[in-house]
Amino acid sequence: MARWVRYSRDGAESFGRLEGDHIHVHAGDLFGGSAPTGAIVPLAEVALTIPCRPGKMIALWNNFRAMAEKQGLDHPPAPLFFIKPPNSYHPPGAPVAIPAGAGKLLFEGELGIVIGRRGRDLTPETAGAHIFGYTCLNDVTSLDILRADASFMQWTRAKGLDGFSPIGPCIATDIDPLASRVVVRVDGQVRQDYPLSDMIRQPAELVAMLSQGMTLEPGDIVACGTSLGVGSIRPGATVEVEIAAIGVLANRFA
Amino acid sequence: MARWVRYSRDGAESFGRLEGDHIHVHAGDLFGGSAPTGAIVPLAEVALTIPCRPGKMIALWNNFRAMAEKQGLDHPPAPLFFIKPPNSYHPPGAPVAIPAGAGKLLFEGELGIVIGRRGRDLTPETAGAHIFGYTCLNDVTSLDILRADASFMQWTRAKGLDGFSPIGPCIATDIDPLASRVVVRVDGQVRQDYPLSDMIRQPAELVAMLSQGMTLEPGDIVACGTSLGVGSIRPGATVEVEIAAIGVLANRFA
Repeated sequence: MARWVRYSRDGAESFGRLEGDHIHVHAGDLFGGSAPTGAIVPLAEVALTIPCRPGKMIALWNNFRAMAEKQGLDHPPAPLFFIKPPNSYHPPGAPVAIPAGAGKLLFEGELGIVIGRRGRDLTPETAGAHIFGYTCLNDVTSLDILRADASFMQWTRAKGLDGFSPIGPCIATDIDPLASRVVVRVDGQVRQDYPLSDMIRQPAELVAMLSQGMTLEPGDIVACGTSLGVGSIRPGATVEVEIAAIGVLANRFA
Repeated sequence: MARWVRYSRDGAESFGRLEGDHIHVHAGDLFGGSAPTGAIVPLAEVALTIPCRPGKMIALWNNFRAMAEKQGLDHPPAPLFFIKPPNSYHPPGAPVAIPAGAGKLLFEGELGIVIGRRGRDLTPETAGAHIFGYTCLNDVTSLDILRADASFMQWTRAKGLDGFSPIGPCIATDIDPLASRVVVRVDGQVRQDYPLSDMIRQPAELVAMLSQGMTLEPGDIVACGTSLGVGSIRPGATVEVEIAAIGVLANRFA
């Protein structure tokens, strides 16, 4: 198991492997092959950035059994998704400035699958080798925008404003995410706590289905959808998304 | 007025200004400032690539009066959109390989607005300076996927498969797109022919509205939506999207 972080320090961006409270700096390409430089940097001396820069973030809807049951939804025969744009990507730890007009915000704690290898038309058997690792996500949503127009569900705009996709704090490799839970705390109070084993489509199957006719690239992220407990973010609140095998993604909303 | 193209030649990618059937090669950044190198390359000796690489392609729905009237839709108080992912971007002239399972395909000829300057929370008055130019788009759609799930309109997947966003052939600057028409021909037969002046939201107003809470970056593209005449693409057909002031975007579907 490894935990990969990206960070900026003295204006330069680099990446490395997190060991306790230090980063073992690496050179090369996170997905293509990297090696330690020998440098070790204290985590406290850097600002974490987004752990990778996705070319696309595919965000699923209706992918947990408990949530489907609560909402009276059938299990979809194929994954249902929208895309979160790059302007929404946001680093761990960095405050999110709530845009004017965004109205009532919701947090949605989610597992993120990070693709490590280019692929298309994969099978559940071959897709596993295309998964590099996993991260924590907060799929922030403007409830007011989502349903503002009766003719068109605004998944993209409601979830695509600046800062609406906190990602991190790291990408964890060689973990079994289905053994973990997603726990979301708002100002320290637990608001979501659901098992990832409740996913309707599990990671390799999801990646295989998403790759039909659609090439997945290294760094692409699949946001696996959320489950019970979604709730509102009041201005000033800090939202933490924790998946034990990965870490804690914390952002204050200002 | 200038027409900017990107191209590859002998394995290297470059860009320049199209003058008749020659490209005046430029160096620098298309959006940040560029200068002619003095080299001139015959258009016939290069393969055109996507004229820019958008960080995001914002694709509008319900943005033409005639189409809204036909479909019985109100004019939306705010632009309604989804995102087309990077794997869908496709060069002018290059054949599109129809993915297995895509079913019945539709062409949608559209105007694309190319952003040239970073901006957010713009006004219709300030937004014009953020528009670099305009291009032609084909917003290819799998009709079968679009409505395959009654619980969730699959705008993203139906329009996001590999090759489903042909872009080009160039970016034209300093034109008035509202004086032009979008003409789509399939195997030489005119199938769409609508005036861009029929847009519900015109470019500067669109860009201003889209930029509310959502940063637009150089190279981002706004697909302005389509109007009457959308129809099917049979395998083997060549679809041409022409906007007189820009040029002809032609792709064969195989």
